Amino acid sequence: MRLLTSSCNFETEGTIKRKIFSLYLALKIPEDLVIEKQKKNDTIEKIVSLAKRKGFVFQSSEIYGGLNGCWDYGPLGVELLKNIKEEWWRFMTYREDIEGIDAAILMHPRVWEASGHVENFTDPMVDCKQCKARFRLDTLAEQIADKKKEKIYKELVESLKDDIAISEKLVKIHSDESLSLDEKFGAMLEDKDLTKALLAKLNCPQCGNAGTFTAARQFNLMFKTFIGPLEDSSAVVYLRPETAQGIYVNFLNVQGASRQKLPFGIAQIGKAFRNEINTKNFLFRTREFEQMEMQYFVKPEDDKKFYDYWKERRMNWFKSLGMTPEKLRYHDHPKDKLAHYAKEATDIEYEFPFGWGEIEGIHNRTNFDLTRHEQFSGKSQKYFDEESKEKFIPFIIETSAGASRSFMAFLVDSYYEETVKDEMRAVLRFHPRLAPIKAAILPLVNKDGMPEVARKIEAELRPFLRVFYDDKGAVGRRYRRMDEVGTPYAITVDTQTLEDQTVTIRERDSMEQIRVSIDKVLGYLLDKLKVNY
Amino acid sequence: MRLLTSSCNFETEGTIKRKIFSLYLALKIPEDLVIEKQKKNDTIEKIVSLAKRKGFVFQSSEIYGGLNGCWDYGPLGVELLKNIKEEWWRFMTYREDIEGIDAAILMHPRVWEASGHVENFTDPMVDCKQCKARFRLDTLAEQIADKKKEKIYKELVESLKDDIAISEKLVKIHSDESLSLDEKFGAMLEDKDLTKALLAKLNCPQCGNAGTFTAARQFNLMFKTFIGPLEDSSAVVYLRPETAQGIYVNFLNVQGASRQKLPFGIAQIGKAFRNEINTKNFLFRTREFEQMEMQYFVKPEDDKKFYDYWKERRMNWFKSLGMTPEKLRYHDHPKDKLAHYAKEATDIEYEFPFGWGEIEGIHNRTNFDLTRHEQFSGKSQKYFDEESKEKFIPFIIETSAGASRSFMAFLVDSYYEETVKDEMRAVLRFHPRLAPIKAAILPLVNKDGMPEVARKIEAELRPFLRVFYDDKGAVGRRYRRMDEVGTPYAITVDTQTLEDQTVTIRERDSMEQIRVSIDKVLGYLLDKLKVNY
Repeated sequence: MRLLTSSCNFETEGTIKRKIFSLYLALKIPEDLVIEKQKKNDTIEKIVSLAKRKGFVFQSSEIYGGLNGCWDYGPLGVELLKNIKEEWWRFMTYREDIEGIDAAILMHPRVWEASGHVENFTDPMVDCKQCKARFRLDTLAEQIADKKKEKIYKELVESLKDDIAISEKLVKIHSDESLSLDEKFGAMLEDKDLTKALLAKLNCPQCGNAGTFTAARQFNLMFKTFIGPLEDSSAVVYLRPETAQGIYVNFLNVQGASRQKLPFGIAQIGKAFRNEINTKNFLFRTREFEQMEMQYFVKPEDDKKFYDYWKERRMNWFKSLGMTPEKLRYHDHPKDKLAHYAKEATDIEYEFPFGWGEIEGIHNRTNFDLTRHEQFSGKSQKYFDEESKEKFIPFIIETSAGASRSFMAFLVDSYYEETVKDEMRAVLRFHPRLAPIKAAILPLVNKDGMPEVARKIEAELRPFLRVFYDDKGAVGRRYRRMDEVGTPYAITVDTQTLEDQTVTIRERDSMEQIRVSIDKVLGYLLDKLKVNY
Repeated sequence: MRLLTSSCNFETEGTIKRKIFSLYLALKIPEDLVIEKQKKNDTIEKIVSLAKRKGFVFQSSEIYGGLNGCWDYGPLGVELLKNIKEEWWRFMTYREDIEGIDAAILMHPRVWEASGHVENFTDPMVDCKQCKARFRLDTLAEQIADKKKEKIYKELVESLKDDIAISEKLVKIHSDESLSLDEKFGAMLEDKDLTKALLAKLNCPQCGNAGTFTAARQFNLMFKTFIGPLEDSSAVVYLRPETAQGIYVNFLNVQGASRQKLPFGIAQIGKAFRNEINTKNFLFRTREFEQMEMQYFVKPEDDKKFYDYWKERRMNWFKSLGMTPEKLRYHDHPKDKLAHYAKEATDIEYEFPFGWGEIEGIHNRTNFDLTRHEQFSGKSQKYFDEESKEKFIPFIIETSAGASRSFMAFLVDSYYEETVKDEMRAVLRFHPRLAPIKAAILPLVNKDGMPEVARKIEAELRPFLRVFYDDKGAVGRRYRRMDEVGTPYAITVDTQTLEDQTVTIRERDSMEQIRVSIDKVLGYLLDKLKVNY
């Protein structure tokens, strides 16, 4: 589900915590849960550590202490990310009915008025009048210990009982037995009066003073900057908080240039920025991230057909690249929880170590966006249908995937630890098309003419594939190093190679080896790496 | 040459105008020059118009009147840009000694203090006190008509003759006969006192008042924004004005993860942003643009060797992708014009319709950047050399290409108009590896089983290549449409195809056709598209 407010887009910390909390209550075996959570955190930490050590992901500006919510992709990470984006691009645009674009990050500010982001892309915030610290309202409430929460809650019920209007709202929440304590707090924060009463009870987490909070105010999550030499309101532009609008404003330009007819789509991969107050879970919630979006323009009456089509296609894409099917699910949005512009919406979720999280959203956005751009720009956004001779604004089915989140899901999903011959083997079981390095070339020993043959093979493969030459250490250790970074094939030059011009090719997951004639190696690898949607 | 101040990086409008002016004087046939200029402008306008019509480049947020200095790549543009970037990536990173990265656009603000950008990445600006308009100093001077310039100049010489100190400086400029009038103005603007005297003589181009300008002040060209909820100086971060720093701060992270030894390089493709006051020449000077940079870390004593190596390699890259050799040249920077951090620098320039312009810079940046980051971060940036057991900060040879500028150069360079059988043919002679569409599939007539065969060929090629199926209109017109977007191969299914399972493949530039068996088409095309550095 996407994304006018950050909380309606991706799951908030609150939602996830609430889910964990519900699970906790349901299980009624809190100790086990804690152990389970511990294990999961271990895994994510292992991944973060591996990611840094092997050069997948570094903290941004690390030597300066890092920049919260920003990450840099290292040598292997940039290849994995590139491969994911390239697979998406091929899957989505190597077809007759979809065109690609690459729109600028900086757009005209009216775009964000039309889209509703200037008004609605906000989180509620409060300031401490005493120490001037600022907090997001929902996380402020989340930081309270459970015991304290119970106490505050009881006090509130007591102190508000004389104020009938407010008290009624509280009683309604209070009497809903399906709500956990956390969820009751969440429900209170949706009401202005109850929020005010609650804030009066809270201490500032920074200075500790009580009752020092301002009323909650809306904080816009778009990064703003100034274009041109003047820093005033007329010069404000925003870093796009989503790539979708770059597609909508180009709808008729693309349609005109490409001569496409409905139904057709426009695809784009690019960076987007959100000034999240709380970033977390490694690449899951960051301030700078990359999206892979496709907007499919259809006749209004075809919306359901193509919504279902894309829902299925997109799930299959993740599976076709080897993501574990059991760790993927749809989360359909109930009708009463849809964003104002959406008629139908579903998330594709992946089960991360910290819980289920959205990696892609598929939405029926109706004609909302183009209608708004027509209103705000004064330029017709209507499509002329040559068959029916009618002019109308098409409906849009959107598939909006996170490239950064997909990266994290593919990385987590491919990580395995196994015991092989009494030794631990860490292996990244990337789909060969996603693997940063496609093949390693290993001369068994660094003499007897083996390096020369190995270098010849390397030179033959390099124009076509990212390969890695390694002649350092025992061949078993070299295999392990390649397993750990997910290289699917290892070509070994050995004594027999010098006799009959064959090499062994070892497959990463099965660890099985076959002998292949040197002149067949490139063909063998290219065949293994062929697309197979 | 790059880029601490915008003017020391790429050629300023002033420099180019001055060059044109010098040329004008040298030729002494101004009418011819005007005609020549007219023709050139025609060409760039033709390109801009073609770019929009065919879907290479659209104005950003066009329906809202556009956003100055930002452009969107359309369906064909995004493919051309992707192909250029992919070729660069293969050329630069498909080798043992170069690793890739993809660093965040938002970086820790200390990075830009260390790099010198906070202090020095500026243009001088003046405000009109009357109407509050703001102008870049050099362009303000450039807007004055030549006759007026002569008058102002004479008046200045007259009015300053009593002020000995200032007058001396003016006389020095005045007596330098190698300077044109424009260049004399340029030289004056490099002196604070003369600038002040000059400003007093100028009228505001907006309100027309004279003597209303403030003193010139430095305006920083970095876009700034605020990270987190507070909009104060502690929260300021910048959109990176260059990608290079993302490489420098990751130097040891990358070296550690990849176990590289000197010499080795780190490559990156990514967006950068500069709040240029004057954007111009289509994609040449924009506010949002993309760079393709590689930083090569070497032992200090090897700097010259690798500077020369990369200088040659990078020029060859452009040529290997078909750019006209006569339109490429080096512009070596004289020793006395080098930036403070550079020991040697050259530009690779392309002859655009508006004149020669930099498309890449190769620089010996010495150990300047890493030394600064060591000072500012307090973290050692030294490399330990295992052979000599010495620790030292490596020198850096940088190759910094503009992806957007390369795009424009490849587009301009490939545009040809020819007369074929008494008809004008517009053709984009892209190198096959850069062409947005690799092959068109054209059934001669849309019946007799030809579409079925053509669709089968399309299905076979599509997983490997971007192809385009077209069955609309006479085949001659379909060829022309493909010529105009630079598709190198057109496969035609005709009557003979149905008899012997062969098709014709027409080559775009020679317009020659050969017959190829259907089952050999994919192999034929892949072979033609092979890398050939």
